[in-house]
Amino acid sequence: MTTLIIGSERASTFAQGVRDADPSFNIRTWPDVPDPKAIRYALAWGPPPGELAKLPNLQLIVSVGAGVDHLLKDPSLPGVPVVRFVDEDLTGRMVSYVAANVLYHHRRMIELREKQAARTWEYLAEPAAHELTVGIMGLGVLGQACAKALGPLGYKLAGWTRGPKEVANVKCFAGSAGLDAFLGETDILVVLLPLTPDTRGIITRKLLSKLHRPAILPGPVLINAGRGGLQSEDGIIASLDAGELYAASLDVFSTEPLPASHAVWAHKRILLTPHIAAESDPRAIARYLVAQVGRSKRGEPLPNLVDRARGY
Amino acid sequence: MTTLIIGSERASTFAQGVRDADPSFNIRTWPDVPDPKAIRYALAWGPPPGELAKLPNLQLIVSVGAGVDHLLKDPSLPGVPVVRFVDEDLTGRMVSYVAANVLYHHRRMIELREKQAARTWEYLAEPAAHELTVGIMGLGVLGQACAKALGPLGYKLAGWTRGPKEVANVKCFAGSAGLDAFLGETDILVVLLPLTPDTRGIITRKLLSKLHRPAILPGPVLINAGRGGLQSEDGIIASLDAGELYAASLDVFSTEPLPASHAVWAHKRILLTPHIAAESDPRAIARYLVAQVGRSKRGEPLPNLVDRARGY
Repeated sequence: MTTLIIGSERASTFAQGVRDADPSFNIRTWPDVPDPKAIRYALAWGPPPGELAKLPNLQLIVSVGAGVDHLLKDPSLPGVPVVRFVDEDLTGRMVSYVAANVLYHHRRMIELREKQAARTWEYLAEPAAHELTVGIMGLGVLGQACAKALGPLGYKLAGWTRGPKEVANVKCFAGSAGLDAFLGETDILVVLLPLTPDTRGIITRKLLSKLHRPAILPGPVLINAGRGGLQSEDGIIASLDAGELYAASLDVFSTEPLPASHAVWAHKRILLTPHIAAESDPRAIARYLVAQVGRSKRGEPLPNLVDRARGY
Repeated sequence: MTTLIIGSERASTFAQGVRDADPSFNIRTWPDVPDPKAIRYALAWGPPPGELAKLPNLQLIVSVGAGVDHLLKDPSLPGVPVVRFVDEDLTGRMVSYVAANVLYHHRRMIELREKQAARTWEYLAEPAAHELTVGIMGLGVLGQACAKALGPLGYKLAGWTRGPKEVANVKCFAGSAGLDAFLGETDILVVLLPLTPDTRGIITRKLLSKLHRPAILPGPVLINAGRGGLQSEDGIIASLDAGELYAASLDVFSTEPLPASHAVWAHKRILLTPHIAAESDPRAIARYLVAQVGRSKRGEPLPNLVDRARGY
């Protein structure tokens, strides 16, 4: 009954965390797998395709992150249960990333920093929070937690999901039929979608052109803390340069790490962060793994089980 | 029964706002005062000292801002009621300024922007919100509203006030006896005090050296959205340069506009804004003036009446 940690740069940190959480766990970190038959459980981020298929007795895969696109893209992924990582600590970090970036652009902080650099003391008009609608694409655990924290800051809230959903204090839209109406009310777009065949490349210049033009702010805002594969970076830059979009905060990119030559780095209206919106806390990951493995051993239902047909 | 608008660069905007709110109001904007005896009400920000004393029939002074230090410093100020401006719109703006700056430093955005400028893709450790205590000096309408919005973001909250006070979810400290204990628990210090003889110059390097050193962040943080007269800018810079303070957001300064030669402008760890944390909305000011004048005429109690002995 061994657990394999695979496909993460932080494998040794996670291994230590699991040993701290439960010293009885047998842990291996890939590629140190002397006996593939002994591996029952895997803690995985982006394992090399085909590697998990070499484990004949695998019973459970625990994702290190909230998203599982990096696992499901492996066509040989064994047909065992996959659970997403859902955790209060990770959720709290995502909420603070989203709130920080919504407020940053609402309060025109890119422009204010430019004025500071130029030593210019100059009033800049800013909308009141209640004049802005924050529209969240994806109302899972993360999206709902963001809505709950943004409400007390005074924003109006909208949400868009694949299928119909009701969330308190959020005006909900669903499916492709509801997308344009959702965008037409949204001043600050927060993207927290999973990456699936349906959502890949969804954030285009055309989609951004449908956003509502907010009061006072020079234009609408994009915040993507979901996955880089959701967006066209060229589309975002074109949208910013045409004045269709005022500013963007991007934590994720089609290629990560983002190559140093990419135009996103130097764009004055893009706030770039290196996929750190919600880092998984190794202690929380370890506790989660131990709990999920326990449930698997006892044959109990697994929370946060991935629906492979849906893709998340 | 004429109202005089005095001591504000935005006098004509306010005059238009009052006419829109109540066309029956007689309005004069200083220095256009053909008949001083006709003036019963004044809407004032920083009037030239002695000017209000020239109005023999003055009955009420309405401050354009939440603070009244700019009025009370006039030793000849007539002994009529002075009311502070308290308004949902202004409160909401202050909340978003404070939340934006708390989150900005919690998420190490100064450093992340430097990394972006250097095209460096590098993980930067960040504390979870629940590992940080935001300590608010001043728990009036603004301080309490900030606490209410910061709670759902996950922060622990502390507060310091002149006299004892109880506020839900805020660990309260009071008076000079409670100051060191308050600072010793505070990682991010938010200053929303009124400027009075007791509070003038309270934010010194010595006071800042007593702040708690937070988890993971390089040091504690100062956010002053109260009054510039509360702080020593030299003390703040010395504190930053010595690594005692990690970063500061300053919206107010001892001299405003801040002279272009001042060292604050170029300091890498100071986020400077030109006293715009909570601009008074002219429409809201106009509604407030009309309501307060109505109460004064009818002899009703005036909300937000200033206690001159206390200084706010």
